[in-house]
Amino acid sequence: MATCAVLGPEGTFTEEAASKYLNHETKLVYTNCIGDVFELVTGGKVDGGLVPLWNTQAGSIPATIKNLINRELIIDGEITLPVRHYLMGREEHPLGTIEVVISQPAVFLQCEQFISSYLPGARKEIVDSTSTAASFLTSEKRIAAAIGPKTVASVYGLHILAERVEDDPKNCTTFIHISPKFHCGQKPNKTSVVFGLPDKPGALYEALGVFARRGINLSRLESRPRSQGADTYLFFIDLEGGIHEEDIKKALQELEDFSVFYKFLGSYPKNKS
Amino acid sequence: MATCAVLGPEGTFTEEAASKYLNHETKLVYTNCIGDVFELVTGGKVDGGLVPLWNTQAGSIPATIKNLINRELIIDGEITLPVRHYLMGREEHPLGTIEVVISQPAVFLQCEQFISSYLPGARKEIVDSTSTAASFLTSEKRIAAAIGPKTVASVYGLHILAERVEDDPKNCTTFIHISPKFHCGQKPNKTSVVFGLPDKPGALYEALGVFARRGINLSRLESRPRSQGADTYLFFIDLEGGIHEEDIKKALQELEDFSVFYKFLGSYPKNKS
Repeated sequence: MATCAVLGPEGTFTEEAASKYLNHETKLVYTNCIGDVFELVTGGKVDGGLVPLWNTQAGSIPATIKNLINRELIIDGEITLPVRHYLMGREEHPLGTIEVVISQPAVFLQCEQFISSYLPGARKEIVDSTSTAASFLTSEKRIAAAIGPKTVASVYGLHILAERVEDDPKNCTTFIHISPKFHCGQKPNKTSVVFGLPDKPGALYEALGVFARRGINLSRLESRPRSQGADTYLFFIDLEGGIHEEDIKKALQELEDFSVFYKFLGSYPKNKS
Repeated sequence: MATCAVLGPEGTFTEEAASKYLNHETKLVYTNCIGDVFELVTGGKVDGGLVPLWNTQAGSIPATIKNLINRELIIDGEITLPVRHYLMGREEHPLGTIEVVISQPAVFLQCEQFISSYLPGARKEIVDSTSTAASFLTSEKRIAAAIGPKTVASVYGLHILAERVEDDPKNCTTFIHISPKFHCGQKPNKTSVVFGLPDKPGALYEALGVFARRGINLSRLESRPRSQGADTYLFFIDLEGGIHEEDIKKALQELEDFSVFYKFLGSYPKNKS
């Protein structure tokens, strides 16, 4: 039976993404943080892993980006889900009485306006997953609430204190499936790479030219600061097209030759959602 | 006497940046969060404000980015400081006994390895400034520690429990000075704008071409997801050169004509550091 590591415990958005992305025969292996999903896949303990990559409000998930740069794994699929947040508690507390609110860092960025309007005096605690947030309510002596998906409330038997607390009603998260090695099984029509450029004028323009000249479309470009240097960046790009296509292959070869850092992240079928 | 709003209370890195950036006759006005600095400057309550924009480990500071997009203010200067973090507490607690650690979200990203190695069991609480973190220690019943600059420890009379807890010894933050209106007083040699592009192949390549063709160097490009749309971005760029230079002016005019969103953020003297 195939196995897939996901951010656990049960009830997280990653689990929801996994249940939609994977076939029902894949066994889920729950981990405590995103780094552990990568660890299990790298160590061959599971066949694959599913992790959040990007949220429309919060941007890239730092832990996923860091692991993609530092580990030898391949993205072989993706799924985008609408993300709806709920405020939950052990009992029916009025919002004004809540002393502490617990969730993931990215969730606080997605619910900023709600929190500042309705829970202005609450302390904010960050944890690695929305499930952990819910589990912390049990041992909390203060009047506490967690923010996460509805499923987390059911798993932990919690009351919903406020519905749809995300600031943007179109809030979405893209999850990626990672594997130990590249296999060009399904027809890939999207390709992701990360690169760093030499420090010279027009370098990014020149780099993007390898795609523009061939009419290859970039569906995403995201820059991340590269540690150990104030003004250097790594660029994450998604291209429309698969690595089996001759012009994509040539463009990436040119990009690699020009870059000071280059990593192929995967070529896979575009969003299943 | 000139006034400048900074993230307070006393002791924060922003105050340190202000003391280095401003002349000693400027009066500092302390605020509780970055949004309040923008609010005071917009409302004409102060002459200017100083806010963190970017950290080499944590990337852009979301609250600053959001306010730069939504408000009509101008960046008229910048200063980059090395940022050293200290773990501080009311008493000399051994690290293993600490139950809760309090700081800003960006600081947690800068001290991730230290926290997971030395404070693995500690709960993590986020606040708007490192000074607030220190001030929370007084009322905290659990064994608690804050992370922030050494000055915060002196202001609050705290013990240093661990020195230099930032993961990257080259950790730096760039702060910007914001003003209600643009005045081309000092010789500007750096220009910042933010723009959004039409959804068509090669759009970013075409946009960067307006600079490349004129030999204008980009010292920074940062993409941020634009809310309300999964695959659209705003691009923040810094150019080498001042807005009084004819080719910069023309390039920006061309960029503005091509963009679906465009905002001039300022033209100012490069880093004072």
